[in-house]
Amino acid sequence: MDPQTFLDIATKVTKLKMYPYFDIAHYTLMCVAARDDVPANSSGGTVFSRKHPLSCWVSSMLLCFAGSLIANFLLGEPILTPFKDHKALLTASVVWYLVFYSPFDIVYKMVKFLPCKLAIAGLKEVQRAHKVYHGVVYTAKIYPNSVLIILFIGTIKGAGSGLMKTFERLVRGLWIPGTNEVLQPSFVTKACFLASLVFLMEKMNYITAPHALVYFGVVIFFVYFKLSALLLGIHDPFAPFENLFCAVFMGGMWDAMRRAVAAEPKKEEKDADIPAAKSREDKKND
Amino acid sequence: MDPQTFLDIATKVTKLKMYPYFDIAHYTLMCVAARDDVPANSSGGTVFSRKHPLSCWVSSMLLCFAGSLIANFLLGEPILTPFKDHKALLTASVVWYLVFYSPFDIVYKMVKFLPCKLAIAGLKEVQRAHKVYHGVVYTAKIYPNSVLIILFIGTIKGAGSGLMKTFERLVRGLWIPGTNEVLQPSFVTKACFLASLVFLMEKMNYITAPHALVYFGVVIFFVYFKLSALLLGIHDPFAPFENLFCAVFMGGMWDAMRRAVAAEPKKEEKDADIPAAKSREDKKND
Amino acid sequence: MDPQTFLDIATKVTKLKMYPYFDIAHYTLMCVAARDDVPANSSGGTVFSRKHPLSCWVSSMLLCFAGSLIANFLLGEPILTPFKDHKALLTASVVWYLVFYSPFDIVYKMVKFLPCKLAIAGLKEVQRAHKVYHGVVYTAKIYPNSVLIILFIGTIKGAGSGLMKTFERLVRGLWIPGTNEVLQPSFVTKACFLASLVFLMEKMNYITAPHALVYFGVVIFFVYFKLSALLLGIHDPFAPFENLFCAVFMGGMWDAMRRAVAAEPKKEEKDADIPAAKSREDKKND
Repeated sequence: MDPQTFLDIATKVTKLKMYPYFDIAHYTLMCVAARDDVPANSSGGTVFSRKHPLSCWVSSMLLCFAGSLIANFLLGEPILTPFKDHKALLTASVVWYLVFYSPFDIVYKMVKFLPCKLAIAGLKEVQRAHKVYHGVVYTAKIYPNSVLIILFIGTIKGAGSGLMKTFERLVRGLWIPGTNEVLQPSFVTKACFLASLVFLMEKMNYITAPHALVYFGVVIFFVYFKLSALLLGIHDPFAPFENLFCAVFMGGMWDAMRRAVAAEPKKEEKDADIPAAKSREDKKND
Repeated sequence: MDPQTFLDIATKVTKLKMYPYFDIAHYTLMCVAARDDVPANSSGGTVFSRKHPLSCWVSSMLLCFAGSLIANFLLGEPILTPFKDHKALLTASVVWYLVFYSPFDIVYKMVKFLPCKLAIAGLKEVQRAHKVYHGVVYTAKIYPNSVLIILFIGTIKGAGSGLMKTFERLVRGLWIPGTNEVLQPSFVTKACFLASLVFLMEKMNYITAPHALVYFGVVIFFVYFKLSALLLGIHDPFAPFENLFCAVFMGGMWDAMRRAVAAEPKKEEKDADIPAAKSREDKKND
Repeated sequence: MDPQTFLDIATKVTKLKMYPYFDIAHYTLMCVAARDDVPANSSGGTVFSRKHPLSCWVSSMLLCFAGSLIANFLLGEPILTPFKDHKALLTASVVWYLVFYSPFDIVYKMVKFLPCKLAIAGLKEVQRAHKVYHGVVYTAKIYPNSVLIILFIGTIKGAGSGLMKTFERLVRGLWIPGTNEVLQPSFVTKACFLASLVFLMEKMNYITAPHALVYFGVVIFFVYFKLSALLLGIHDPFAPFENLFCAVFMGGMWDAMRRAVAAEPKKEEKDADIPAAKSREDKKND
């Protein structure tokens, strides 16, 4: 492709308006997530939505605006601010209504239909990049030198729904403390962290490429991995790097060495070494 | 009654000072609520209060000031602000002490005695109207055009203790995630929402009646339904309207139609239609 | 000891810099607390730290900065503020890494070795006094007349980790609602409350001793009781006073009187009185 054309496209992507299409895609996916997240032994989300419309609406809104809500909470700003934007709230509510109560469940079924799903997921990832970028820019303005806070808010703006899930479930009367985003970070959270890091490094002039290109790169990164997750089932491309990192720095190396030392008197170094590496794998997989 | 006398009474009600009588009624009911809310299999609130006075006090205070605490939290204001008012805090603490530790449990028994109960409940409802009104006025000042936030804060100021219950229980070592105010809103919460709506519409000049009359109307509405709940056992006069609304808009209509369509080939439309309406009822009742 | 020398030492203690030694002692104990707090039926903190390094790090940081985080939350200030201080965060992270992942677990074993433990605990108590004092001073500046808020923030700055525990556990996928710091306040929490009270009374000119002396007194009080807890196993020197207070004011007296009155007709006053006092003791002990 001609570099100039490419840069033009990138610049256009940078200036995309999120409202309405990208936001609607985001709201749709969040409402579907709220609807699909039912305990295994229950009779399903449809029945719940008939009995408890208020709880459904509140939990869907918590997910739709999760990034802003949590970021506001952590930055000491009024938590309800996202609800000031009536247009966004109304759009989200309409989407919520259609996902939960459309005649013959047509909207929900359409969203679950693969080509539609791909399109919506693609749009949503563009919106995610937008949110991460604006989270980083905003936080960098109010906390200019606090690298960690900037990364943290960037990540949360992009992947707040994962962290919100624990509390959003509580609104629906569910409480599953044994699993949360910090304990088992999803790929999305890690990708948002990486994107925040890229945007932060750009802010700090460590990356000298044109801004449009950096932004476009992140968008492509998000969309590419989302589509490969949906089409190819690759859920966490970071896992091998993480496992390696953990095996070296997070105790794995020392554990292996300790086992080797403990095993030495019994002349079983090699046998001990192999299960050590293996058990490392097992731990990561469960 | 002479309209002028009526308006005079209404104006007097509008200008009532909440401290001390109305506030004391509120604190009493909240402390009683904290005392009565014990798990079914425990040996009762009296024993708990002997073992854990601090926990009792904290949970009672959380309920007494629930509206302000949650509203401050949501509006990004210092959460502890209500505890700046030493007079209120001291009054609430004295009430707490009397409800939990009075000699021969005389205060608690008096509060549970029906005529006293009615009087206290009546006073408390006047205070509730006052809090809802001031919640709406205050929020309308800082978020002039955010209808939803105004309604939300108005409701919480009036019925915050319902929402606080989940967390207040946690202080007492109880955790009951399966039930909360959003999942099963009580009549009080719905009434506060309606009252907020009335006050908001008055603010926006959709209601042109004199302010004293509107305010007095809300007070009467609160007191009337509280007394009828206590005397006649009518717990939720909104339920029929809600059921109708849900049956029409929250999927009930479409569910019935889908069942009808699904049943058509088998020539069982009528049989299918009746259980459809019936199951709607069942769902609402459980 | 010469009073002038004593005062000189006291003044020196007042002006001690917390960073790095005292802070490191604090971080070490917090990370060890996060590591040791595993459910009874699990296979231990070591395995958990290998599987979930992020969760370990977040929960350790939550404990290390618990006082500031909770105080900021309650005072409506940006919660993330403590993470602005990169030096503190980096130090805490290094300590965390050493406690969890040091080769052959040498750091953890050293911390658990009694003489080291005593030294670290001593340093940490000095830091605690420092934090309580600055908590009181800071809060007295922004809420000059709010005695309760000042005491509350002072206590939390010194003993925030106890209150944070409930939520820090949630990050590690644990949820133990049946026990919390309000339900069963530890000695540390009570001591911090007392220290806050002393500092507040000094602020309000009820204590006229030189500031250095008051501060040094609080430090000695903290260190003395910590060391006696570690060496002699005296865990709560306040317990007898509390039991007495509860027996007199928190219903115990009235309960005994009620039992006596109830027993009178049966001529069993004396028998009834003794079990009444005894059951009071039992309740406090369990």
